[in-house]
Amino acid sequence: MKAAILSIGDELMLGQTADTNAIWLSGRLADVGVECVQRRTVSDDCAMQASAMRELADVADFVIVTGGLGPTDDDLTRAALQQAIGHGTGSLPPMLEDGVMLSRLERWFAERGRVMPAINRRQSLHPAGSEALPNEVGTAPGLRAKLGNATVVCLPGPPREMHPMYEQCVAPLLPVSPMKCGMVHAFGSGESSLAECLGDRMRRDRNPLVGTTASGSVVSARVRGRDQAASEAAIEKELSEIESLWKPFAFGRGSTTLAGSLGAALLQRKQTLAIAESCTGGLAGSLVTAESGSSTWFLGGLVTYANEVKRDMCDVPQTMLDQHGAVSEPVASALAQGVRKKLKADWAASITGIAGPTGGSDDKPVGTVWIGVCGPQFEAVRRFRFPGDRATVRDRAAKTAIALLRMAITDPSNRVSLLWEWPVDG
Amino acid sequence: MKAAILSIGDELMLGQTADTNAIWLSGRLADVGVECVQRRTVSDDCAMQASAMRELADVADFVIVTGGLGPTDDDLTRAALQQAIGHGTGSLPPMLEDGVMLSRLERWFAERGRVMPAINRRQSLHPAGSEALPNEVGTAPGLRAKLGNATVVCLPGPPREMHPMYEQCVAPLLPVSPMKCGMVHAFGSGESSLAECLGDRMRRDRNPLVGTTASGSVVSARVRGRDQAASEAAIEKELSEIESLWKPFAFGRGSTTLAGSLGAALLQRKQTLAIAESCTGGLAGSLVTAESGSSTWFLGGLVTYANEVKRDMCDVPQTMLDQHGAVSEPVASALAQGVRKKLKADWAASITGIAGPTGGSDDKPVGTVWIGVCGPQFEAVRRFRFPGDRATVRDRAAKTAIALLRMAITDPSNRVSLLWEWPVDG
Repeated sequence: MKAAILSIGDELMLGQTADTNAIWLSGRLADVGVECVQRRTVSDDCAMQASAMRELADVADFVIVTGGLGPTDDDLTRAALQQAIGHGTGSLPPMLEDGVMLSRLERWFAERGRVMPAINRRQSLHPAGSEALPNEVGTAPGLRAKLGNATVVCLPGPPREMHPMYEQCVAPLLPVSPMKCGMVHAFGSGESSLAECLGDRMRRDRNPLVGTTASGSVVSARVRGRDQAASEAAIEKELSEIESLWKPFAFGRGSTTLAGSLGAALLQRKQTLAIAESCTGGLAGSLVTAESGSSTWFLGGLVTYANEVKRDMCDVPQTMLDQHGAVSEPVASALAQGVRKKLKADWAASITGIAGPTGGSDDKPVGTVWIGVCGPQFEAVRRFRFPGDRATVRDRAAKTAIALLRMAITDPSNRVSLLWEWPVDG
Repeated sequence: MKAAILSIGDELMLGQTADTNAIWLSGRLADVGVECVQRRTVSDDCAMQASAMRELADVADFVIVTGGLGPTDDDLTRAALQQAIGHGTGSLPPMLEDGVMLSRLERWFAERGRVMPAINRRQSLHPAGSEALPNEVGTAPGLRAKLGNATVVCLPGPPREMHPMYEQCVAPLLPVSPMKCGMVHAFGSGESSLAECLGDRMRRDRNPLVGTTASGSVVSARVRGRDQAASEAAIEKELSEIESLWKPFAFGRGSTTLAGSLGAALLQRKQTLAIAESCTGGLAGSLVTAESGSSTWFLGGLVTYANEVKRDMCDVPQTMLDQHGAVSEPVASALAQGVRKKLKADWAASITGIAGPTGGSDDKPVGTVWIGVCGPQFEAVRRFRFPGDRATVRDRAAKTAIALLRMAITDPSNRVSLLWEWPVDG
């Protein structure tokens, strides 16, 4: 079965509102193994809506439309469905008033101590050839009709009305054959290098199908069964093979985040962490504490943005700052050792660099970041040169510190080799 | 001129990634008065991409495609454009290698001390009948071709590559009838309340047209001339009237951020800032240091996640922690005073709360956050109760601390009244 999603509204087309309905519906369809072949967004324009409904009914078995069912003049989904049903017949089907829907509407207002505005009466209309679907949460009933061989269901735009109506009116009409799928995430190498490691696995005729995406420098492999021939075990085998191919960059599966993988490693060892940040100004701490339960293993940190704070709060000698500058190997080392000692943590990291756009020099260009990691019987300090703008350099620096910590903690063999072989551009 | 947007990627169709590119492009097109007639999203499927390109070229003069230009097997935009160009001719145009693009690619890797993986060579290919567009930021060149009367431009998916390529390769091709527009931003009150303040200004037949949007709890009013009749002066008048109506929540215009508005206030007064964060774990510091030049006014901070760190690093008495708990008025006050004194800052803020999902109680439910602000001859500590999940509570808490600082610094009259009248739910 193939589905398509049509989102309606000027506010979407003007870029003023994110189309969270389409994302939500896509996820729900993927969960039950229904392939979504197209998503489309059009303005509050009756003719465009009608032709979109017809075109999507040609390529999908199931078309889900959201928005345009309100009571105002720019709510045109009822009229568009009427046009789409009538298309090619030379006439428009009549609009019918649904008595049950009308009394529901009147009751909805009465329960709130209000008389129904005249304008809302049109919400009880539906074109002949379609049926109205009850809305338990708001005023706008949905609509359902056949266009050719496809079923078209129109749902109201507000998510808190759309979600329950989907569960009640759409979900039961879909086949339940959950698509088997899984994800492996990696950080520390580029998408093209990691994809190259996968070789033939990414061929488009394979089952399961493997694809990669990159978001915020995290590269993910998606493994997805094309049909029932792809067994649970085949997906699992693929995922674990990708994890080995992506060593040591692979850090987790599914909803695991980079910081979550570090937290799990610390939790397992009952160890704690502290961070000293200069150019990232708290970003690494923020990523770490975004994880619920991080208070078990994260003690806190120092945001040593000014040199005086590095000296007074983290015991970095003034002579060292004068001689080497704040962005240097000895200062990164002193920050990591300092915050570890002050906060009595098992592990610590430090980040000091030049995020730009100003502050770079020939010697230390923008993007130069020193990262220190230390723990029981271990210390490493590495220089990186991250490409990109201020936000990207900071993001990469914070995530690299977290990834280096995870690698050093989980695998002692990483401590000698890997920290030194990690690519300089992260 | 009519435009259409085509977004490509399995990760979008599976609902795993929000299509921020389409939203961004929609906004940019609206800014210059180009009507976007359709947005469409399809999977990494060559035939579907090709037919989408052709169908959109039938309804629009300009088609902007994003995604699918990477080096891997599931990047099919080059092949889809080849199919779309060849459609109806009975043959596919050959793929040509662009020598300039190839040497750019090789240089890109060389500059990062790496050899170009073989897989990336295909990024220098483009179908005959199209031309390659240089990418200054990443490896994926764009593509441009004519399909019928329409111009199709294909841009890479990562926003930090797509945005500059749009400015460089697409914006100059659009008609130059820049609609006059401007934005006012506010934080601290909800979108519906702020919209209500604007009253009739939001009527759809007005010129200039006023609309509101909310993103990350920042509410923005967009003022846009419908045509040349809306003068520069009329837009300016509208913007400054909205700023007064939105007092004291309005913090800036255009590209000004909340942290940037705080930085400007400190810079003007040659004053400095320090922050102590518990539940936000560095997020406020990260927002503040996202501003280039923040080192002039931001000294640093303490991430006092564990109670021991509050005590040892920020001089919060153990008896106070035992008696009132970490999420309390006296601890918020001690943290703000402590970090101000330790870092020798003019101004300081503290944040201590329960971000959830666990850790709440009847007395201190999830979302309870104490925020302290102190400066020369000034101190205020306030309790908030932020709605939403962990990420939302943390985001609102960090931004509220920044907004309270700005208000206290910029207007002494706020210091008595506003800090106490600010809505408890932020």
